[in-house]
Formats: sequence, C-alpha cells, structure tokens
Amino acid sequence: MPATGLRLAMIGLGTVGTGVVKLLTQRPEHLRALGVGPLHLKTVVVRDSGKVRAVDVGSARVTTDFDLVVNDPEIDVVIEVMGGIEPARTRIAALLRAGKHVVTANKAVLAEHGRELFEIARQADRAIVFEASVAGGIPILAALAETLSVNRIQRVSGIVNGTCNYILTAMHERGLGYAEALLQAQHLGFAEADPTLDVNGSDAAQKLAILARLAFQSRVDWRSIRRLGIDELHSMDIQFAAELGYVIKLLAEGEVAGGRLSLQVTPKLVHKSHPLAQIRGEYNAVRVEGDAVGDLLFSGKGAGELPTASSVVAGVLDLATGRGQQTFRALRLWEESPAGPAFEPGLHAKSRFYLRFTISDKPGTLARITSILGEHGISIASVIQHETPENEPGQPVPLIIMTHEAEDERVRQSLVEADRLEIVRAPSVCLPVAAHER
Amino acid sequence: MPATGLRLAMIGLGTVGTGVVKLLTQRPEHLRALGVGPLHLKTVVVRDSGKVRAVDVGSARVTTDFDLVVNDPEIDVVIEVMGGIEPARTRIAALLRAGKHVVTANKAVLAEHGRELFEIARQADRAIVFEASVAGGIPILAALAETLSVNRIQRVSGIVNGTCNYILTAMHERGLGYAEALLQAQHLGFAEADPTLDVNGSDAAQKLAILARLAFQSRVDWRSIRRLGIDELHSMDIQFAAELGYVIKLLAEGEVAGGRLSLQVTPKLVHKSHPLAQIRGEYNAVRVEGDAVGDLLFSGKGAGELPTASSVVAGVLDLATGRGQQTFRALRLWEESPAGPAFEPGLHAKSRFYLRFTISDKPGTLARITSILGEHGISIASVIQHETPENEPGQPVPLIIMTHEAEDERVRQSLVEADRLEIVRAPSVCLPVAAHER
Repeated sequence: MPATGLRLAMIGLGTVGTGVVKLLTQRPEHLRALGVGPLHLKTVVVRDSGKVRAVDVGSARVTTDFDLVVNDPEIDVVIEVMGGIEPARTRIAALLRAGKHVVTANKAVLAEHGRELFEIARQADRAIVFEASVAGGIPILAALAETLSVNRIQRVSGIVNGTCNYILTAMHERGLGYAEALLQAQHLGFAEADPTLDVNGSDAAQKLAILARLAFQSRVDWRSIRRLGIDELHSMDIQFAAELGYVIKLLAEGEVAGGRLSLQVTPKLVHKSHPLAQIRGEYNAVRVEGDAVGDLLFSGKGAGELPTASSVVAGVLDLATGRGQQTFRALRLWEESPAGPAFEPGLHAKSRFYLRFTISDKPGTLARITSILGEHGISIASVIQHETPENEPGQPVPLIIMTHEAEDERVRQSLVEADRLEIVRAPSVCLPVAAHER
Repeated sequence: MPATGLRLAMIGLGTVGTGVVKLLTQRPEHLRALGVGPLHLKTVVVRDSGKVRAVDVGSARVTTDFDLVVNDPEIDVVIEVMGGIEPARTRIAALLRAGKHVVTANKAVLAEHGRELFEIARQADRAIVFEASVAGGIPILAALAETLSVNRIQRVSGIVNGTCNYILTAMHERGLGYAEALLQAQHLGFAEADPTLDVNGSDAAQKLAILARLAFQSRVDWRSIRRLGIDELHSMDIQFAAELGYVIKLLAEGEVAGGRLSLQVTPKLVHKSHPLAQIRGEYNAVRVEGDAVGDLLFSGKGAGELPTASSVVAGVLDLATGRGQQTFRALRLWEESPAGPAFEPGLHAKSRFYLRFTISDKPGTLARITSILGEHGISIASVIQHETPENEPGQPVPLIIMTHEAEDERVRQSLVEADRLEIVRAPSVCLPVAAHER
C-alpha cells in the first residue's frame, strides 16, 4: 500500500480538538512508524478566531470560514469535534457531499440524524468514522462492529457518562451532596457549564442508541428510550444504598429477550461485588454479552481531552489505512431495513427494587405499607428503619425496603397507592437494582 | 464492495475448530446480515478421519490430506487451529506461498516463528490474522494494533492464561490444593491433559511476546522472558495472601521505562481492590496504559470453544471485508527493524515483596531474619507469625514478611543469606506484590 498520507481539516478546537492537535503534531516519529504516511492538518475552523488557544496548531490555518474546508479539494478527511446538532448536521452533510470522509466524536448528531447522514455518506461513497462518539477512549464500537460481529449480542450495559459517574463517585465516597459534587466536576472539567444533557440521562441515551444500532442492528429513536438522570438523586439514597452493600450508578442498558429489544437509562443500585461497581470517577465501562464470546467488559476513561482524541485519531488512522472505508461499507449502518429486533419503548423488565418512603413514625405504618406491597404481589427482601433521633420527635423518618424481583409496573402502581396514605409524608423514591453478575 | 464471499478451509477440528464450524454453519441469517457474502467451509483437515466428531461440518470435506487444501486454487482463506509448532509452521508457510490468507489461534507458532511467517506473508502479499492467539474472545490485539495505535503504550499487563487463573481461583475461593484444582480444571476442559506449558508460564510468555510486539513495536524472543509458573505455588501462600487482603494471580507484564522494555510472567500478590483481583476462573483480562488514552481494562473469557472461535471468525470476517489485508499491510509486523524500545531480559523492577520463611520457633529468630533484610536495605511493612500449635512443639512454623518497595536483586540476595541460617528450615518463598492501581 502506498503510504500517501492524508490532508486533514478540523471543525472545532475545544477540549477534544486540542487533544487531537496534540496527538497529530507532537509525535511525528511515532506516527511515521505506523506506516500510514504523513497526516497533515491543513485547516482548523473555529467559532471565534480571536480566542487564545492552549495549543500550537503548527502550520494549520485557523479560520472561521467553513467554506475554506468544504471547497478545498486537497482535504481528504475532516474531523468534526464541534459537537451539538446544528450546524454540525449541515456541515457533515456538506462535507460528505464534497467528497470528504468525516471523523466525528458527536453522539448527539449521530443519534438524532444518523440515518440521514449515513445515507448521504453511502451515496457519496465516503465514510463516517465515529468510534470517539461513545465512551471516549474505549474502543467499544470497533469491538461491536468488527471483532464481535459474528456474535448475536444479547445484552449491552454500562456506564457511558463520565460526568454522572464522577458526581456519583464523589457523593458515594466523599459524602458530597449532588450540587457540591457537580460543582467539583465542573471545576475539574468533567462537567460542562450547562450539564443538563449529561445529568438528565440524555447523553447516555444518545450513546445507548448508537451502541444498540451496532450491537443489535436495530433502529432506535433515542428520544423513545426511557431515561432518568441523576439530577434528582438524593444523597440519602446513596448512603442507604451503601449501608446495604450497593453503589448507585447511572446505567445504560439494552437487552434482547423474546425477539424484542428493551433499552433504558436509569440510576440503579449495583452491588459492590458487581464489575460495574468498581468503575469510579470519570471512567466509563461497557459490558457486552454475546452468544459465542460470553461476557466481556471494557473500561477506561470516558471523557477528556486526550482519551477522546485518541479515538478520534484512531479514526483518522483507520481512513489512512483504508480500513475505515471498508468497515463503513460493510457495516451498512442505519440502513432502511435493519435486521435486528424491534425496539419496544414501553417494554419493562423485572428486577429487584430499592424503595424509600418518608413516613410518620407511628405504630402500624410499616404494616400498612408492606400490606400494599403484598397486595400487588411484591415480596420484601429487607427493611431498614432507623430510630427517630430523640431530639426530633414527630419528624418524618425514612423507611427503606428492598424488594425481591418484581415487575416494574406493579411496583409503580403500589407506590402510587402508598403515596396516597396520610402517614406517607413525601413522594416515595424507587430505584431498580442491577442483577448480580460474575 | 461486491459481497463475493470466501471459500474457506480449516486445519484442525479440536475444541476451537468445533466452535468455528458451529459459528460458520449455525447462523446463516446472522452472517448474511453482516453483508460480507457467503462464507463457505469447503475442506477440513484432521489428523484422524475416523474419529467421531461433536459437530456436523455440513458440506465440508473432512480429510487427512493437507495437499487437498494447499493445492486447491478455490480456497481463499485457511483457518489454522491445530496448535503447536510443527507441522503448523510448515503448513502456514506453504499456505501463504500458495496464495491463501491464514487466520490462526496459534500463539506458540507466532511467538516462535512469527518473524519468518510474517515475512513470507508479506512476500506473498497475503495476510496472517491472529486476534484469537491471545486472550481468547477479548479483542485486545485489534485494540493495540488499530484503535490505540496513536498511543505510546507505557504498560501492558494482565491475566492471559485461563488455566492458571482457574486453578488459582479454585485454590483461593475453595481452599483446594494445587493438584486438586488442576484436576478440576482438566475435568472442566480448562486445562489440557498435559498442562505443562500453561502452568509453567510458557503459554503466558508467548502471549506476552505477541502483546509486546503490538504494544511496543519491540522484537521479543519469548524464551528470554523471565517466567515463573504456578506449578510450585503452595496453597499456604494463597491463604496467607488472603489473610493480608490479597489474591495471587499469574501476571504477564510489559513496561517501558527509560527507553527500555521489561517483560515478565510471574505469580504476584494482587490487592483485592485491584481491578485484576476481580478476574476469576477461566476469565482473562488485559490492562493497557497509553499516554493519550490513559488506562484501559479489557476482560472476558480467555479460552474455550466459542469465545476463541468468536475471535477466529472475526478474523475471517476481517478478510471478507478487506480490513484484514489492510491492517496486515499497515502493521508491518515483525519487520527487520522494529521501532520500539529494546527488550532487556535482565531488567528487574522494584516492587513490594511477600516473603515466607519456614523457621524454628526459637527466641531471636525474627530478629536474625529481619536484621539480614535490614542489612540489604529492605524495610518491612508487616509481619505475620502465628503461634505454634500446642500439640506440635518444635515443628517449623511459617513467618510471613511483607516488605516495602525494594529491588528484586537485593531481596533475592538477602534470601540466599537467610536460607543459610540454621533456624531457617526450608527454602524461603518470595513473590512480588503488584502495585496498587485505580
């Protein structure tokens, strides 16, 4: 193969873009040894050309003019690290139509407009390479799309939002409240100034939609994925979970059962012996169950300048060797007729549940709540009710109940009933418990 | 890309070969959906054609005649799952020269003759695809060679021998002795009838040599890797390690420091909070530290019929899409002039050590041993000496010492001295302790 190299442009020069520039410019010998020919970053498109940059872009031209990229016939590959839906969508479409391959870290635009963009790419015989869009530096998409593709995947689950995992770890290990943990995450660059899409589960749902497309060959509208974030999580529940031997993690889960695909993003109690309980701070992890390979776990940094840039540059190298093009053609992603099971947004799985009631500390309270659960066929595994502090008589107290396996729907119905009781003083909290695993 | 498919042959129909046949023949719709065209298994070469097989090979011809494969111009790809050095080496060479790509799970032949075979492949413009040769179903080689290749890898470490990990887990969790645990592993198919190469560390060293070639671009003679197996491990040490909060794992480790590469295979004490301590039974795990991506952990089943077959068939699919050929050309594996740091077989790292002395229970014994350690500059972190059972006065007793970080060479010198003492009744045991990690 002639090592002719590639001429590159990049759209966006934020955290990930800065990392990409560092990797492309600060290790010329290492890149040369890979035998892919020179990777020349020619143009970088930014929003504000006056901004001081943390990185030297070398000989690259920094401009606010996107047309200098899309109309430049010399440029082979464009790296899109601007993020967000628009103008990313319009620009990616224009770049593909102009004959450029696109490497992107943008899960939002792929989850929202993947079908349209992949169709444009196919028509233009160009590739979209998107390993960096899910789980930062962890090569999970290549694993699903390539090395594991002979497997019928039964289950994909994991921690795919580093912001949430950082916050939950700080709450669990250092007893911080949610707001304080979020502030720290922002301070350390693990959360954005507006963290809404991270903490409300949207970001994880977008990544899950991409994982599901690769793992199950199913078409998924990410907006239909039932999702709960961590923004309403109370630190009290982190503490009670710990008392019971669990940590709370925001899990993104997809599972095929009976020919139907269920997907959800939700905070779950994970037993401390579970492999995902060990994933701390800004780390991500994805667990895959295939019918041939069994269960695999991939973990590593899910965010940050260099981890994500590592996956972006891997995409560039894939195009430089010709692999990226081959993979894209073979994958037939987001095609009209997906081969996989249909996604049923309403599908509810069985699990154990953690319930917290805020009750008046009066005789008979426990009996009334447990009898409502019993009437719905929900059996109780364990209960925690601490004594009321002596100096606070009459204060509402928390009652924690761990159920045995029960149907989600029944549990929710019973909570609606329980919350109507006069002795129940605040809306109850309900979190599913992750099944035990190796 | 025209989906013309491939015609395949396979050499060997043992455990992995049986799994490959199952994956190739029992999921036609799944393979069709991958868009790679039909994969037709035409010929299977076995040693004994009369043997009853556990799997239906479909329309494939089963023969003992290797020439029917090497001389068949229709066959594009040959799967080598016979294992061992010869005749695998000669056959792989002949197949490449006859214009066939080779997919192999054979780490022994690659570690021993990789350079020669890769050179033959390059001359014939054919590819050797070998994901299945290390860590069974875990796609670690693709990760190192492709998705992580922009990284300067600093460290690769892991559990890459499922037989040893099964035995160690059984000793640790169920209190079995080595011989009993090995028997169980053989009974369950996790150890071969002759387990020598697994339990003495050779198999792990061969895999480490392949990992090191991909991670560090260094040329490594696997026979020069300092290696210790688990065959002389005493269950007493597993118990004392547990008492101290550790499990013993057979670790394969490669590290670059100061421009030099050190590699070793050795049983180590791993703290129970360490990610590798969680890897149980027949599972494997590989931890990679890259300068951009940070630390990644990959874990999954390292052996067995279907997990390894999953990686073998992934190799076939890679050739069917054209990716395998691209990757092989780009990788320039085992070339004359490797770009990476030189491997120094004698390089010894610092670590903490677990020491077990078998001593006479006499006054002053502890003082004499600790003063020898002190003279060598080795400081002590903790000591365990249990009381002698009352009914066994005069019996030698174990003395356990955990050191602070010390140089391997100094520790060994001090043990030579200590073992000369009259009060030391048996050769001392010395195991390194793995550094703490996230």
